[in-house]
Amino acid sequence: MTANTPTSTSKRDRVHALMQRAQQDITQAFAELDGQATFRPHTWQRAEGGGGTAMVLEDGAVFDKAGVNVSAVYGKQVPPSLAKQHPQSAGQPFFATGLSMVIHTKNPYAPAFHANYRYFEVGDGTSDSNIWWFGGGADLTPNYAFEDDIHSFHSTLKSLCDRHTTADYNTFKTTCDDYFYLKHRREMRGIGGIFFDELSAVGDGDWAQDLAFVEDGLNTIVPSYLPLVARHKDDAYGERERQWQLYRRGRYVEFNLVYDRGTLFGLQTDGNIEAILMSLPPLVRWQFDYQPESGSPEAEMLSYLQPRDWC
Amino acid sequence: MTANTPTSTSKRDRVHALMQRAQQDITQAFAELDGQATFRPHTWQRAEGGGGTAMVLEDGAVFDKAGVNVSAVYGKQVPPSLAKQHPQSAGQPFFATGLSMVIHTKNPYAPAFHANYRYFEVGDGTSDSNIWWFGGGADLTPNYAFEDDIHSFHSTLKSLCDRHTTADYNTFKTTCDDYFYLKHRREMRGIGGIFFDELSAVGDGDWAQDLAFVEDGLNTIVPSYLPLVARHKDDAYGERERQWQLYRRGRYVEFNLVYDRGTLFGLQTDGNIEAILMSLPPLVRWQFDYQPESGSPEAEMLSYLQPRDWC
Repeated sequence: MTANTPTSTSKRDRVHALMQRAQQDITQAFAELDGQATFRPHTWQRAEGGGGTAMVLEDGAVFDKAGVNVSAVYGKQVPPSLAKQHPQSAGQPFFATGLSMVIHTKNPYAPAFHANYRYFEVGDGTSDSNIWWFGGGADLTPNYAFEDDIHSFHSTLKSLCDRHTTADYNTFKTTCDDYFYLKHRREMRGIGGIFFDELSAVGDGDWAQDLAFVEDGLNTIVPSYLPLVARHKDDAYGERERQWQLYRRGRYVEFNLVYDRGTLFGLQTDGNIEAILMSLPPLVRWQFDYQPESGSPEAEMLSYLQPRDWC
Repeated sequence: MTANTPTSTSKRDRVHALMQRAQQDITQAFAELDGQATFRPHTWQRAEGGGGTAMVLEDGAVFDKAGVNVSAVYGKQVPPSLAKQHPQSAGQPFFATGLSMVIHTKNPYAPAFHANYRYFEVGDGTSDSNIWWFGGGADLTPNYAFEDDIHSFHSTLKSLCDRHTTADYNTFKTTCDDYFYLKHRREMRGIGGIFFDELSAVGDGDWAQDLAFVEDGLNTIVPSYLPLVARHKDDAYGERERQWQLYRRGRYVEFNLVYDRGTLFGLQTDGNIEAILMSLPPLVRWQFDYQPESGSPEAEMLSYLQPRDWC
């Protein structure tokens, strides 16, 4: 916080308010594009402290399922897995807030999307903590490879990073490629994006600068993704494309249930199960030993599921 | 092996042959009931040694997906997770063979089914090993609770166990209840059955007796389950029942990808991915915060997903 932005609210409250504002802006923009279905709020409490609100739109004109969850939770003791990473936080109270969202489109030619921005702070909030970090990112999962879309998505994220000295697109892009990788399928979940565990290493960051990047990141969600949906939402498609979309969604489920740290952490720590599994697609298909026809657009998509330079 | 059953084949070959014979018998019985679709073989090799054949029937008249996989794999070193459980096996060569099967029916009133019988042996097979064990079990996953079906299934398995001094229904039933439990949903995957990690503790068992139980177990798969499918395959149903079935299958996926040791072991050890994920249903649905109507048959089913005495 710099001297010329005086405020009576705590850091954690400011970040939480930012997440809530972003949730409102994002759901409004998505509902407008859908034009048919609306987001329904689902508010949940956490026994140990805190809670959240999942806004979920189902079976719309444009979106099969769109979920945007904002939570703010706290507890008396930093969870063991985080205390191991940051020994100086062990045994201390903590606070965490974040926005996470997953979008599954109706039209198979429009990509699926995921974004997550989060803030973690050690302490009880009565005084400024110096153990805090921001994490997050955004990634795209198309069923068909439109190079213009992929370029556009990555360029928008690169511009975002380039506007902030605290961020580095190349590092975040590589982290994203590594993270969203299904080892057992030897393929990425989609075509990547950006991802960072700790925007600045603990003790190393400028809070206001990091917050400014996260705010910009949240504001970039709509312009990075929604134009791609608008471009493809009315593309003509048939049973073949729909079946391929449902099949590819199987990979999404496999990734989220087998690898995704947030999901597994939530399941292990008795998190709100509906908010955690909000990411799962509404309809999914598995087919034994399926291989798309050689030379088809479906087969072509597979070649895009390995790390590649997009900017 | 007792003195009056002389044979020139090794223990491992005898078990593998038994699994293969069971695969043939089982797929024949299931294909006959289906009457429309047939099992297609998919043979796979394992780089480290061995392989298997998955027999898969898809989109039949009675079965949406029926898969029966038999494998026999070997390697130079017992995998770390098993060596930890059995330190005397560390660093030694191993052999493992097993049959695993998953059935997803078309009619929502007919239950899904899973069974798995397996044999593990330490050594290179040139001489009789004294480190070996059998594991396995069978369990049922209905979408609607027909108490007659559940009684019949459990009674058949209890009779199986009662025929063998090496088996104990109550122990295996409790192990099954504990194993097929989705902690994050606080419910069992289905209504249980029997399950055992080691039929006899290593070094403690009579090989011929244990084999006799496993053979009987394999022979009990068809009579324990197929009559339940025959009973319900022509039950009238509509969109409501179908949607509930697809929704319940989501729990099947959640269990297999989050908890099932066989699945996770396979994914981590670069097993044949199609054979491992053969268990996943052909079509699955997730719906945010879905609760069946109070007093409905769907809501009633939920009360059966906690351990209960069935015999």
